[in-house]
Amino acid sequence: RINGDRLWDSLMEMAKIGPGLRGGNNRQTLTDEDGTGRRLFQTWCEKAGLSMGVDTMGSMFFTRPGTDPDALPVYVGSHLDTQPTGGKYDGVLGVLGGLELIRTLNDLNIKTRHPIVVVNWTNEEGTRFAPAMLASGVFAGIHDQDWAYNREDAKGKKFGDELDRIGWKGDEKVGARKMHALFELHIEQGPILEAEGKDIGVVTHGQGLWWLQITLTGKESHTGSTPMPMRRNAGLGMARITELVHTVAMAHQPGAVGAIGHVDVYPNSRNVIPGKVVFTVDIRSPDLSTLTAMKAEIEANASRIAKELGLEILIEEAGHFDPVTFDEGCVTAVRNAAERLGYSHRNIVSGAGHDACWINRVAPTAMVMCPCVGGLSHNEDEEISKEWATAGTDVLMHAVLEKAEI
Amino acid sequence: RINGDRLWDSLMEMAKIGPGLRGGNNRQTLTDEDGTGRRLFQTWCEKAGLSMGVDTMGSMFFTRPGTDPDALPVYVGSHLDTQPTGGKYDGVLGVLGGLELIRTLNDLNIKTRHPIVVVNWTNEEGTRFAPAMLASGVFAGIHDQDWAYNREDAKGKKFGDELDRIGWKGDEKVGARKMHALFELHIEQGPILEAEGKDIGVVTHGQGLWWLQITLTGKESHTGSTPMPMRRNAGLGMARITELVHTVAMAHQPGAVGAIGHVDVYPNSRNVIPGKVVFTVDIRSPDLSTLTAMKAEIEANASRIAKELGLEILIEEAGHFDPVTFDEGCVTAVRNAAERLGYSHRNIVSGAGHDACWINRVAPTAMVMCPCVGGLSHNEDEEISKEWATAGTDVLMHAVLEKAEI
Ligand SMILES: NC(=O)NCCC(=O)O
Ligand SMILES: NC(=O)NCCC(=O)O
Repeated sequence: RINGDRLWDSLMEMAKIGPGLRGGNNRQTLTDEDGTGRRLFQTWCEKAGLSMGVDTMGSMFFTRPGTDPDALPVYVGSHLDTQPTGGKYDGVLGVLGGLELIRTLNDLNIKTRHPIVVVNWTNEEGTRFAPAMLASGVFAGIHDQDWAYNREDAKGKKFGDELDRIGWKGDEKVGARKMHALFELHIEQGPILEAEGKDIGVVTHGQGLWWLQITLTGKESHTGSTPMPMRRNAGLGMARITELVHTVAMAHQPGAVGAIGHVDVYPNSRNVIPGKVVFTVDIRSPDLSTLTAMKAEIEANASRIAKELGLEILIEEAGHFDPVTFDEGCVTAVRNAAERLGYSHRNIVSGAGHDACWINRVAPTAMVMCPCVGGLSHNEDEEISKEWATAGTDVLMHAVLEKAEI
Repeated sequence: RINGDRLWDSLMEMAKIGPGLRGGNNRQTLTDEDGTGRRLFQTWCEKAGLSMGVDTMGSMFFTRPGTDPDALPVYVGSHLDTQPTGGKYDGVLGVLGGLELIRTLNDLNIKTRHPIVVVNWTNEEGTRFAPAMLASGVFAGIHDQDWAYNREDAKGKKFGDELDRIGWKGDEKVGARKMHALFELHIEQGPILEAEGKDIGVVTHGQGLWWLQITLTGKESHTGSTPMPMRRNAGLGMARITELVHTVAMAHQPGAVGAIGHVDVYPNSRNVIPGKVVFTVDIRSPDLSTLTAMKAEIEANASRIAKELGLEILIEEAGHFDPVTFDEGCVTAVRNAAERLGYSHRNIVSGAGHDACWINRVAPTAMVMCPCVGGLSHNEDEEISKEWATAGTDVLMHAVLEKAEI
């Protein structure tokens, strides 16, 4: 069993870096705070006897050697970056849970045949630089590294330049590492486990996702003296597409979700009819044909809405992954671990995207989930209990050990 | 007749201060650019022999003496401040048209019994500091000066502090001046005069307005892993209220208008359901009972929408004026002037609010309108012809002369 107090202390220590305004965190990717968090994690890992490798996307790999020089490593980890108003556990638990299991193996002097590598993937959140899971996506061959380097944040800063700036562009070729297996522990970010009183979610699948960025262009004009029939109100178009996304998601229940998260209105003045709006659509479903249908319905109807209002529309794809089926062997290792340790569990589909979803394309992969209070995440009030964190990390360790072989 | 070329040159000269990005202007109230524009106007007025007074709200008054020491002045003017992406004529034409008529009277050596005062009112646009027509509103006793000083811009800067900062807080008590009459020349900002081929709008009425600021509070949470039934999506509430405002305006056709111009979404991240939105509603009608009904319909239905979505709602009043009926004598003076000069004209209702609307409460007031291309205003592409500007200023001068008495 892992040491829950030590894990919790490390979580609280990391949460001091990039504090939020209401008790959560703002440690967005490739900010100075991200750099500080990475250095703290490095210090801890080196103290635990691990040796560091960093790839050219800035992902950090810490290796505990195995006894068999020919055995591929078992990977474990998640991400240390957060949302702008994020919680203390989203991603962080999976990274520090990986470190905690190493500390426990060290304490107990347990050797494994396969090496174990703890990883922190760069830019999982995708808020500052879309898309999400960027570094693991390059690792899995989904994205091109040059394309990733050219991703821009809202201020026009490039991913590649910011990675250089914080000093974490490593020299390892991305994706060169071969994996025996990968496990990621993550908070559920949804309400199911807590509602059903389960300790552990055995993640069998992940939802697929489309992110669309829509630009509507109408005509800026005076809110008072422009007669209603002469308006080309881009803001009204955005309102109708917001309702459309909601309606499409509701039409594919249960399971599908959809919302608009990011909105920019121009010129954003009380007495000016919006001449341009740029906003992002996020739609998801565990079922590929549903996801594809949702995207088509939104594209067709958004274009119709734009036409009805005399607006120009540009729909750009800003992020995508297909629904994921995790590796049967790894999923079974997670379920076995929960059984063996006596934790209650159920199968679950991940609502969010995770680095594990990309890595699943190139290596046998599975995920462990633990509950979070009220299903709340991407919110500074995100909360979990020490017991939940401990149970999740226990299961993570035992699943890793099944694959790494004592 | 006024000198159209000289007027046009002055308009183009002023437009160089605070240039926009696409040929218009960004000379928002109490910015450095506003200060520069004010100094240029002061230089021109002093060169025309006028003497300056500035009140404690920063409104500038330039006096040409009359022959009768007991006669109250006739006022003429508008505003030099612009929208963030505004045009070159909205407000500016009325101020520089006032200056041009003085220059013409000087050229022709015409004396008037009543003094003539050219005025530039502070913060007509209301974009940076709501509400619009702030200084003329204090002048007319609608707002308290301390309340006005405490208006804040989006960065939390106060009106009073910014007025001090640019050095235009005068010492005259606001509203102390008594007026024989006031005339304001303004571009229509709507499509009617151009469509009907009329040179002049004789403004008989002004629309009434309500500005509401609505805050919806839901719950920030993950766009992927929060099931649809558990969401409290403030962005969806905003979308429904945007549609509501449109529907209410459409139900009161012809005449009524309504739109949402300013929107802030929190935390504004692609994969976070908006937890809070703050946005502004602008509704107008020339008919008081219609305006009152529209406000009540929006308040009631917005509250219902919030309730249905599990959102908290706060509705604040951010600006208001009742519909205006201009002074019969002054309106007749405008119509007579157009007739006398042979310009085609029609009665018109002002869609926008103007300083003249407030001053009408404390002095006999009327407005002259000239066409603008495509009815476009609050847009950098706002355009008028030199002929339209000239006709409007001719009529302005003759209306002023009828009241000022040669
Ligand atoms: N786990 C998580 O929040 N990942 C960010 C990508 C997503 O929005 O699913
Ligand atoms: N004329 C003008 O645009 N005034 C600003 C106030 C309003 O929105 O009507």
